[in-house]
Amino acid sequence: MADELITPRTLKGFRDFLPEAMLAREHLIDTAKAVYRSYGFSPIDTPALEYTEILLGKGGAETDKQLYRFEDAGGRDVALRFDLTVPLARFMAQHVGKTGTPFKRYHVGSVWRGENTQRGRYREFLQCDFDTIGTASLLADVETALVIHDLFRALGFERFTIHVSNRKVLSGLLEQLGLLAQSSAVMRAIDKLAKIGRQGLAAELERACGASGAEAAEILRFVTLRGDNRDVVTSLADLVTGSETGRQGVAELNELLDGVEAAGIDMGRIRIDVSIARGLDYYTGTVYETFLDDLRDIGSCCSGGRYDDLASVYTKQRLPGVGASLGVDRLLAAIQELGLVESRTGTADVLVTLFDADGTHRAVELAAELRDGGVSTELYPETRKLSAQLRYADRRGHRLAIIVGPAEVEAGTAQIKDLASGHSVEVPRAEVTARCRTLLAG
Amino acid sequence: MADELITPRTLKGFRDFLPEAMLAREHLIDTAKAVYRSYGFSPIDTPALEYTEILLGKGGAETDKQLYRFEDAGGRDVALRFDLTVPLARFMAQHVGKTGTPFKRYHVGSVWRGENTQRGRYREFLQCDFDTIGTASLLADVETALVIHDLFRALGFERFTIHVSNRKVLSGLLEQLGLLAQSSAVMRAIDKLAKIGRQGLAAELERACGASGAEAAEILRFVTLRGDNRDVVTSLADLVTGSETGRQGVAELNELLDGVEAAGIDMGRIRIDVSIARGLDYYTGTVYETFLDDLRDIGSCCSGGRYDDLASVYTKQRLPGVGASLGVDRLLAAIQELGLVESRTGTADVLVTLFDADGTHRAVELAAELRDGGVSTELYPETRKLSAQLRYADRRGHRLAIIVGPAEVEAGTAQIKDLASGHSVEVPRAEVTARCRTLLAG
Repeated sequence: MADELITPRTLKGFRDFLPEAMLAREHLIDTAKAVYRSYGFSPIDTPALEYTEILLGKGGAETDKQLYRFEDAGGRDVALRFDLTVPLARFMAQHVGKTGTPFKRYHVGSVWRGENTQRGRYREFLQCDFDTIGTASLLADVETALVIHDLFRALGFERFTIHVSNRKVLSGLLEQLGLLAQSSAVMRAIDKLAKIGRQGLAAELERACGASGAEAAEILRFVTLRGDNRDVVTSLADLVTGSETGRQGVAELNELLDGVEAAGIDMGRIRIDVSIARGLDYYTGTVYETFLDDLRDIGSCCSGGRYDDLASVYTKQRLPGVGASLGVDRLLAAIQELGLVESRTGTADVLVTLFDADGTHRAVELAAELRDGGVSTELYPETRKLSAQLRYADRRGHRLAIIVGPAEVEAGTAQIKDLASGHSVEVPRAEVTARCRTLLAG
Repeated sequence: MADELITPRTLKGFRDFLPEAMLAREHLIDTAKAVYRSYGFSPIDTPALEYTEILLGKGGAETDKQLYRFEDAGGRDVALRFDLTVPLARFMAQHVGKTGTPFKRYHVGSVWRGENTQRGRYREFLQCDFDTIGTASLLADVETALVIHDLFRALGFERFTIHVSNRKVLSGLLEQLGLLAQSSAVMRAIDKLAKIGRQGLAAELERACGASGAEAAEILRFVTLRGDNRDVVTSLADLVTGSETGRQGVAELNELLDGVEAAGIDMGRIRIDVSIARGLDYYTGTVYETFLDDLRDIGSCCSGGRYDDLASVYTKQRLPGVGASLGVDRLLAAIQELGLVESRTGTADVLVTLFDADGTHRAVELAAELRDGGVSTELYPETRKLSAQLRYADRRGHRLAIIVGPAEVEAGTAQIKDLASGHSVEVPRAEVTARCRTLLAG
């Protein structure tokens, strides 16, 4: 058989997660879930595979989505989901009678896109979204910013900024300039500001959006307004006075700032920034992007916004909502880069070593006793040399190792070895669990 | 557009999970992870999509696996994984140099099979496996039984039985009867015992396995041995004395009982039962099935076993191991049937109601304060009638609602309403968080 081995490998753009990476991912997701739940969001799940018709909606711009699409054994045209938003829209159209509104959901799941992997993109990645559906209340927009804030704090980030804009403000300006019909192109251009710079943006606005030089300059001035949030909103108000939509956007930005301020968070972490366009036609009001101040280059780590009508492709019922999506891979890279969590490959704090076969049942009993006492405990399964067992503990990240050799059996004791310091203490057998708890707490 | 609506629907055999079902599933998975981690198992993940060659191995019995198989945009022959064991084998062959051995992993993930849905089967379902790879030590078999035990206890089950057998014992008997070549057919027949009964099994052994009447009777006597575990093992020993393999299986069963006993668990929950054949060629030693005593009909809720060589299709390195897989859907049905968890659709304990627009910022502030105090708190986003807000709280399962109307603002107080009893208390505004904590703890 050996000469017929199949080479073990994964598909390009797909990844295995080894324990170290997976423990970091579980920590991130568990933290996100805890924050979502603290605000009353509930989990849902939807199938990985859907009818292609459902995923493409009416647009059918399949090439954009780079779908994994095929015919199943029953002849159905099916595809793997490429995001969690389209499935949410389908889900709400189907189940809103059961869920009622407002409906606050989070959803953690893999999505698949046949991306060009040369750009460092993956073809399978995890999304972690939260949305409030079925209310037009700006309080839900306020809460979206607060969830992002609490989540980044819970992950251990101190220096981050939630950039907030409102689509209506930009629409108001374009309305005044007579460029409303070009708004998609303008937004796509604005999204490139960080990459192409001011001059590049001005050129792009003239070239791709049909703006005059004066109009391009006006838009540029608009999206690069900086300073105190309230001052920026006042300047925006001056620029859109002629547009009802623009005035409404300005009012919403002020209302959002009021609400977030009422929650008592550090307002230095909120920045009104009209260059955040979020070039999806989808958004209609508040939009969010979140940057780590120390790692701005990795891009927004949590983005989202408000939409007027989530599921118009599937239902006549109007479902406004607001939500955001974590950049899971970016956040994991940042957490590692900034050293915010201790890297581990194992999950247990204590390793009970095995001295000889005679000691097996004593070791099983001790490990069970430690676990009953709330101490995560791994039992080394073989009677290998102690040095090999301790190397295993080092590699897996155990904090304490317990050694019971013949001398300890004789004396009714056990040795507890602190693996970081190398220091050992010998304690009466009956006190091992209590002592481990003390050492681990210390 | 309204006349062109796409009907929202899922594929046959695929499911949406609404919050109530999803909260139950998250509770199950979180509990399983906590138990796995308490024994030092670490998480891994692998892609949903693999090369078909990898998933089918050398066998290529594709029809058995009911693969979702297709050609991707790059012309690769790919398929969705149908279990987590084949990906584990591929993973270990690829990464054992990095993980080292023994390697204890858990893996939670969806798998896909084009099953006949008329049998009540799903085409997408969650698996939740744990395995110890790279050791032949029976201590890992002992620990597998202990993990199953602790997990069922942690889920709230009191009455369950872990049925344990050892493939070597059955092989020993078949060796003595000269039926070793028929062992696959015999195991498949034995697996049907509960369904077809003793007479049915005897007939099947003669018809499908070429056993004589006397041989069938001997096998039947063997697999239906009942009584005290040690007595059963002694009886088995008598039946396989002529086979080295059989004697080794008996010794392993005794060693397993010794080990589990040393951990101090209720031995009434362990039953030596040779009718547990686990008809997969794969297993070579200990095998496990776990039944809920009050719901035996739903079948085994956690099954697994020991294998000599996990990844021989992909590597020459011999990787023995042992592990088990939860029956996630069965356990969820059982938890609901036995009423082991309170059914909820929401995640927050407190609903802060909104009396009027003037109270918005007070409400945001109060909700933030409650969350800071560790109380999960949802803020109703609209100023609808109080009765509508309280109906929302009932539906979502909040335990307390907070009401601050003009009278309370005037008095500097808030009303806290216990939604189960309907009883309200008015407390000073400054004491709301502390009082909610007390009420929720009580």
